[in-house]
Amino acid sequence: MAKNITPRNEDYSKWYTDVIIQAKMADYSPVKGSMVIRPTGYAIWELIQQNLDKMFKETGHVNAYFPLLIPESFMEKEAEHVEGFAPECAVVTHGGGKKLEENLYIRPTSETIIWSMYKKWIMSYRDLPILINQWANVIRWEMRTRLFLRTSEFLWQEGHTAHETAEEAEEETLKMLNVYKKFAEEYLAIPVIAGKKSDSEKFAGAVHTYCIEAMMQDKKALQAGTSHNLGQNFAKAFDVQFQAKDGERKFVYATSWGVSTRLIGALIMTHSDDNGLVIPPKLAQRPVVIIPIFKNDDEKVKVMAFADSIFAELKEEYNVIMDDREKHKPGFKFAEWELQGIPIRIEIGPKDVEKNHVVMVRRDLMKKEFIGRDVIFETVKKQLAQMQVDLLEKARIFREENSFNVDNYDELKKIVTNEEGFVYAHWCGSTECEEKVKTETKATIRCIPFDREEEKGVCICCGKDSDRRVVFAKAY
Amino acid sequence: MAKNITPRNEDYSKWYTDVIIQAKMADYSPVKGSMVIRPTGYAIWELIQQNLDKMFKETGHVNAYFPLLIPESFMEKEAEHVEGFAPECAVVTHGGGKKLEENLYIRPTSETIIWSMYKKWIMSYRDLPILINQWANVIRWEMRTRLFLRTSEFLWQEGHTAHETAEEAEEETLKMLNVYKKFAEEYLAIPVIAGKKSDSEKFAGAVHTYCIEAMMQDKKALQAGTSHNLGQNFAKAFDVQFQAKDGERKFVYATSWGVSTRLIGALIMTHSDDNGLVIPPKLAQRPVVIIPIFKNDDEKVKVMAFADSIFAELKEEYNVIMDDREKHKPGFKFAEWELQGIPIRIEIGPKDVEKNHVVMVRRDLMKKEFIGRDVIFETVKKQLAQMQVDLLEKARIFREENSFNVDNYDELKKIVTNEEGFVYAHWCGSTECEEKVKTETKATIRCIPFDREEEKGVCICCGKDSDRRVVFAKAY
Repeated sequence: MAKNITPRNEDYSKWYTDVIIQAKMADYSPVKGSMVIRPTGYAIWELIQQNLDKMFKETGHVNAYFPLLIPESFMEKEAEHVEGFAPECAVVTHGGGKKLEENLYIRPTSETIIWSMYKKWIMSYRDLPILINQWANVIRWEMRTRLFLRTSEFLWQEGHTAHETAEEAEEETLKMLNVYKKFAEEYLAIPVIAGKKSDSEKFAGAVHTYCIEAMMQDKKALQAGTSHNLGQNFAKAFDVQFQAKDGERKFVYATSWGVSTRLIGALIMTHSDDNGLVIPPKLAQRPVVIIPIFKNDDEKVKVMAFADSIFAELKEEYNVIMDDREKHKPGFKFAEWELQGIPIRIEIGPKDVEKNHVVMVRRDLMKKEFIGRDVIFETVKKQLAQMQVDLLEKARIFREENSFNVDNYDELKKIVTNEEGFVYAHWCGSTECEEKVKTETKATIRCIPFDREEEKGVCICCGKDSDRRVVFAKAY
Repeated sequence: MAKNITPRNEDYSKWYTDVIIQAKMADYSPVKGSMVIRPTGYAIWELIQQNLDKMFKETGHVNAYFPLLIPESFMEKEAEHVEGFAPECAVVTHGGGKKLEENLYIRPTSETIIWSMYKKWIMSYRDLPILINQWANVIRWEMRTRLFLRTSEFLWQEGHTAHETAEEAEEETLKMLNVYKKFAEEYLAIPVIAGKKSDSEKFAGAVHTYCIEAMMQDKKALQAGTSHNLGQNFAKAFDVQFQAKDGERKFVYATSWGVSTRLIGALIMTHSDDNGLVIPPKLAQRPVVIIPIFKNDDEKVKVMAFADSIFAELKEEYNVIMDDREKHKPGFKFAEWELQGIPIRIEIGPKDVEKNHVVMVRRDLMKKEFIGRDVIFETVKKQLAQMQVDLLEKARIFREENSFNVDNYDELKKIVTNEEGFVYAHWCGSTECEEKVKTETKATIRCIPFDREEEKGVCICCGKDSDRRVVFAKAY
């Protein structure tokens, strides 16, 4: 276990912060509630952006940029929206040395400013659909910072689409939820439960909200992405009508969907260990480190020649690090790159050169293996792919082992209170029962999952009929 | 000439705005001073980002992200900095429903927040250099919007580096200026004059500022990028010292450098014409459009088969648009894609199919050429490369034809007042003479150019000795 990192079983919350600070992924900033994303953390965000952006473009979306500052009066146009977000906003009252005539809110999300523009751009069905995404920063006021998971300012993407029909909007909402699910599983290696939010958990201004939910290593839930069907709520608030093919004027249908730098927190909490960060290979800008080991100049010449040839070969495909710093001992370097989460470490000492092999260590397994010189490249390739698959599978098994079908309220209470995992239980659909569980156990309904078959039962709370189980858990 | 676009010689300023609005590159937002960057404009920014980011990484830089909000007290730590920027700031006074104890400024630039973090991160020479860049939004209050060129909020990148010695910092400052020059010329196809700013034009808080300056089609100057040597000013303001190799404690040396979405304005003003936008091929996400032309189903079958095979071939390498919309006539489509600045248009009618060729039109030349079926791919490739070169060369010739060595104050006054071009004139180096010219002609010293040889002369204003000419011009 790495020095300066509290073990998970001692204090999970401290472990999480230690990994981030020690791996230099992020740091606290002097402004309460906000953080600095350092290069190691930002490198992961860059690959999240690149890969998600590609998936957005493949599904027909384009990027744009809307203003940071939103007039107070815009926020007030959609009743649920202002109620949900205004209390969390940072407010600009002065600009250019003067008091402003109207206060400006730093965007907590951009529906209002975007729909004020869509009103200008949408005249007829020919202007639809609009499939726009934006990469941006937003602020939702927080005093208690939790790096990556809860900060006043965070980076995210927000898609905002406009459609002719309710069906198209629903299709888009689900399509983007699936993009998120695919991305979470294939890139972040985080298995997620896709489903629908209960009414009390939906986005302020949405008709309904879909989400993906993941289990962290402390068995708590983390919402990793949301996709909202906004119906005609924002079109009505901003009077956005279009001339339909039949000549009638109709209100436009909307969706919005987003994921944020919170995904980096989810990645850490799913895969990392007491030695530090573990990065899924597809999100590692530097997937391989080579550490040459020698004690004198003779050994150095021999080892470096061998190491350089391997470096050159791998460099063709991978951003390899050659750690030939002489001021540090091998053990120090091993610990440092483990902390940084580099997926594959290659160690090369004089004896390895003689035997024409290297020692290879996969970050998730931490087991040394000898790999013959001829098959290094293909082994790196294979192991990176395998590690990506294994991380997902390990997390899936962990989640399944800690998910329980429960039909007894006391048992639900025990499991969620002790944070033993996810509880699949019957629920009648009423806000009262949902609230009761929340008050008594601090667990919320994470989602009404898509992948569970309908099943007759009775509400775990009130005993009324229910035809499906929902997921209860404590959440971040 | 395109409808809805005012010709340049009628009203250059209106032409510029018309191109942007008609090509849907950007739009005015409801908040005074701010703009919306629409997909056509944002697509150019994405390629600017991708290519510049690659150049930053090749020169050893990494990306990070620092908070949007800066405490008032931080801004006040560097005297020139606060004087220069505070009056332009947007100020957050309330957050989370409460009045804040200390006002927060939305970053106009990030030196202060970044150096407050560097203080935490820099202990010894081993921690140096720090070579960090950030892609972000900033706000500098503006009431009179000029799309892309002058808006309250804009997108940019800001590099912030920390070094052991003054020499290293100076080397970095010049290295990044050269990156900007190379990028401007090779990607934006904009020839630039690299040089040093006079003291009165330098960045608030810098020891000195280097810049690249370009000539627009109205013969006014536009500053396209700046690189600042900040000396130890910010290290002293934030008390950032390090233990040097010799054991002594010393203040760190700093640089900062940035370019912004203003580059899109420069691109438009350099290359576009009365038909709309002209995009240099390297910054065109969609460099080719194919327009099949047919009048009946027989022709359609024949033309589409031919067009589809060309589309498939080009698609291997390029993001080609196939504009087979039947509701619009060819002339309409030609005008639309000219307006959007697509570099190459391919027209295919039934006769072209018979003759086994296509009509190809380069956006900058607007001349039809017949290209045999077999050489379409290689011609597209060649013409895209050639257009990139030609745009730069055309702009360079234009600038040279409109640059004048002047030794007589009245002549300088005439040229800059009538906006006839750049004036290279001798200057003694005093702020008084610089101010006098500015007051009397509205022209400023754009830079002390690097590429002009030393030359003895006398100041155009006061007659004192001078050993170099500087560039005077009216500027955006």
